[in-house]
Amino acid sequence: MQVTSEQPLDDHVLERRFTLGGIPGILWTPASASASAPVPLILLGHPPLGLRTMYPRLVARALHSAAEGFATATIELPGSGDRPRWPAVDQARADLRRAIEGGDAVSDETVDALVLPLVDKAVPEWQNALDALQSLPDIGGPFGYSGGVISIGVRLAAVEPRIEAACLYAGSFVPRSVFEEARRVTVPLHVLLQWDDEGNDRQAALDLFDAFGSEEKSLHANTGGHTGVPQFAADAAVQFFGRHLR
Amino acid sequence: MQVTSEQPLDDHVLERRFTLGGIPGILWTPASASASAPVPLILLGHPPLGLRTMYPRLVARALHSAAEGFATATIELPGSGDRPRWPAVDQARADLRRAIEGGDAVSDETVDALVLPLVDKAVPEWQNALDALQSLPDIGGPFGYSGGVISIGVRLAAVEPRIEAACLYAGSFVPRSVFEEARRVTVPLHVLLQWDDEGNDRQAALDLFDAFGSEEKSLHANTGGHTGVPQFAADAAVQFFGRHLR
Repeated sequence: MQVTSEQPLDDHVLERRFTLGGIPGILWTPASASASAPVPLILLGHPPLGLRTMYPRLVARALHSAAEGFATATIELPGSGDRPRWPAVDQARADLRRAIEGGDAVSDETVDALVLPLVDKAVPEWQNALDALQSLPDIGGPFGYSGGVISIGVRLAAVEPRIEAACLYAGSFVPRSVFEEARRVTVPLHVLLQWDDEGNDRQAALDLFDAFGSEEKSLHANTGGHTGVPQFAADAAVQFFGRHLR
Repeated sequence: MQVTSEQPLDDHVLERRFTLGGIPGILWTPASASASAPVPLILLGHPPLGLRTMYPRLVARALHSAAEGFATATIELPGSGDRPRWPAVDQARADLRRAIEGGDAVSDETVDALVLPLVDKAVPEWQNALDALQSLPDIGGPFGYSGGVISIGVRLAAVEPRIEAACLYAGSFVPRSVFEEARRVTVPLHVLLQWDDEGNDRQAALDLFDAFGSEEKSLHANTGGHTGVPQFAADAAVQFFGRHLR
């Protein structure tokens, strides 16, 4: 892990850009974090639109989390941003767009081709990032995961024992096999669903919530459309991590 | 409105028992409430099990609300507690129990007979109570409604303009006509649903949430069974009122 730049965002947060095996990433730590007072870390997931596009929303979540004493970090997804294009996933995305525009049902095959390769490749990368971040003196634990492609969050919560709590955003296509993975998730979960998001399959989101094996799971459904998650819902997500990562 | 007893519950809350047209009720106010600093009021709904039975749960909600600066009040439901029995509703309840124990589907007629007379009678009583409570010098406004038989909450939120925010608990049978009333509700709503409550019709709760006309509505679904609403969900409900009743 190579830190490529380091800058204070305000008096309270330090932003470090890094690369890890060629994958760009960003780490935000509260100024209070130090080797003698290491802080918990939340991995910030995001949709595959590239870190540059997602930066404003990510940094808002990072500042909000830092105010509650949490470090946050994110890495670029495979095929996105400055990483090499990934023709197979580009093709699946084009197929998906064509199906939606044509008013056709989106087939299970299209969803699998779009999502599963991304999950298979991204999850080990997030685990590697966790290895590297965990070794920093000002990062302690425990660790959480928040947001992004929900199927990545499900897999990571199911296979990575260091993830002790996860906040997942319903809203992307979910392969059938991911419902089976969801049954193996046992960590506390906080699931956000934008109820009136027309591009979202609400029933699939409810079915996925039902499938999770976690003893503690909460679904917070709100109005406001796809990108209109209310501020109080973001606050509730941070409160969730406050209960579980301290 | 006649206050029949008055006692401090601790240093922070005053409990006043009252009767209003023969209906028993309880008012809890933060000690800070006064004529020069009147406080908002939340009406505390409850299932028709009698105030005496419900008291421990009600007083817990009252203390929690008082700590956030809210007065709370409740009245006995028709046919419950020390009020005269109501044979028609007792009969409907017996029919319901028989249907459930016999494994039969509960008919719309049984649900209507159980719930609608209760709503028709209770809602004007809660409105009268609001008239009386509003006239007290230490009660200001705005006003909210929280919990209890959800159909009472829906009707009250739909017809009573003084109710500016409502927290509703999914979990009782809902007559079909109440879904139509729900479309006329426009105040901010916070709906609690115990996801793994076997006695609850989850799909009906989701359909009702969908029906509400409110621009701001949130559904918080949690695990823990019928009476196992987690403490953090109770906290979130009080936070909801904090956003809307100050």
